[in-house]
Amino acid sequence: MSEILKAHLKKFVELNEEDFQIILSFFQTVQVRKKENLLTEGQVCKYHYFVLKGCLRKFFINEKGTEQTTEFAIETWWMTDNMAFEHQQPTEFYIQAVENSEILVISAQAQEQLLTKFPIMERYFRFVYQRAFAASQMRIKYLYDLSKEAFYHQLEERHPEFVQRIPQYLIASFLGFTPEYLSEIRAKRLS
Amino acid sequence: MSEILKAHLKKFVELNEEDFQIILSFFQTVQVRKKENLLTEGQVCKYHYFVLKGCLRKFFINEKGTEQTTEFAIETWWMTDNMAFEHQQPTEFYIQAVENSEILVISAQAQEQLLTKFPIMERYFRFVYQRAFAASQMRIKYLYDLSKEAFYHQLEERHPEFVQRIPQYLIASFLGFTPEYLSEIRAKRLS
Repeated sequence: MSEILKAHLKKFVELNEEDFQIILSFFQTVQVRKKENLLTEGQVCKYHYFVLKGCLRKFFINEKGTEQTTEFAIETWWMTDNMAFEHQQPTEFYIQAVENSEILVISAQAQEQLLTKFPIMERYFRFVYQRAFAASQMRIKYLYDLSKEAFYHQLEERHPEFVQRIPQYLIASFLGFTPEYLSEIRAKRLS
Repeated sequence: MSEILKAHLKKFVELNEEDFQIILSFFQTVQVRKKENLLTEGQVCKYHYFVLKGCLRKFFINEKGTEQTTEFAIETWWMTDNMAFEHQQPTEFYIQAVENSEILVISAQAQEQLLTKFPIMERYFRFVYQRAFAASQMRIKYLYDLSKEAFYHQLEERHPEFVQRIPQYLIASFLGFTPEYLSEIRAKRLS
């Protein structure tokens, strides 16, 4: 399963097998069951997660007491609360498994040591953060620009693998509306 | 003025004067006048901007034909349309000077060469993107979580330097409401 990380690293940097095995030793592999939390609001955010298999989501509890999902991560995606992770502070978020998942976990301290020992990993993480930031900038544009309905249709067109894989009520939680409203939109689309 | 870049680099990496002078040679310095565009919708996004002095903003024209500001950059902040910059594609954004500004400019090609020649810059940009991404994740949370009014008050509390420096109508454009509504909120606050 660690082949998935190796292939992802090799997309960005050159790496031999020996180095990869040392890099891998900075991580732990954990199995999480569907709906299990990896991170809970108020905890210090100690870890960075890389999805080998399965799906995670990040959410917070909004003022109405509802779970508002802000991100999903599937295979080869990284996830953490980056602000709380960098500063080793309590988080405002939850990270939860959407499916039974297999995750590589690295602590903030181990990630620092990894970057010191393998400067090539600076390049890898530079790419990871650069792309995540770019996607996030577009996301902010859509949050301003698109109606919730248009955002859903865009999601359906650009990421059909998400819409099919992720339970309806979580798609609704990501888009910021009720499952009932999502059913209405889908019904309108099909009629 | 290039001392500002040097100090910013030194916050993240060790660097001698000779290397800094070579690094600096990858950039051009440009002066932009207030309201001048550095980037226009539809152009290929060729450049990454670092603010030495002044202030830039990024905006797009929304469906109503209104300018929606999504980001500001002041001294030592980077700005570009990262998605279009990485893929060298046409942008959906404008980047415009809010004040007369002095900017360091690096092309996508020169940035690649810089990273190849000075791998230490991988570490620098890893930090730049990591922090930008972390801030952007919090921004997305606030876009879901806070009313526009609460978002304005948060901006006032956490970034008074912005609220004082940036013209009212641009603060309104960033928050996604009309200048009239912003005046109302401010009046309510003062009363």
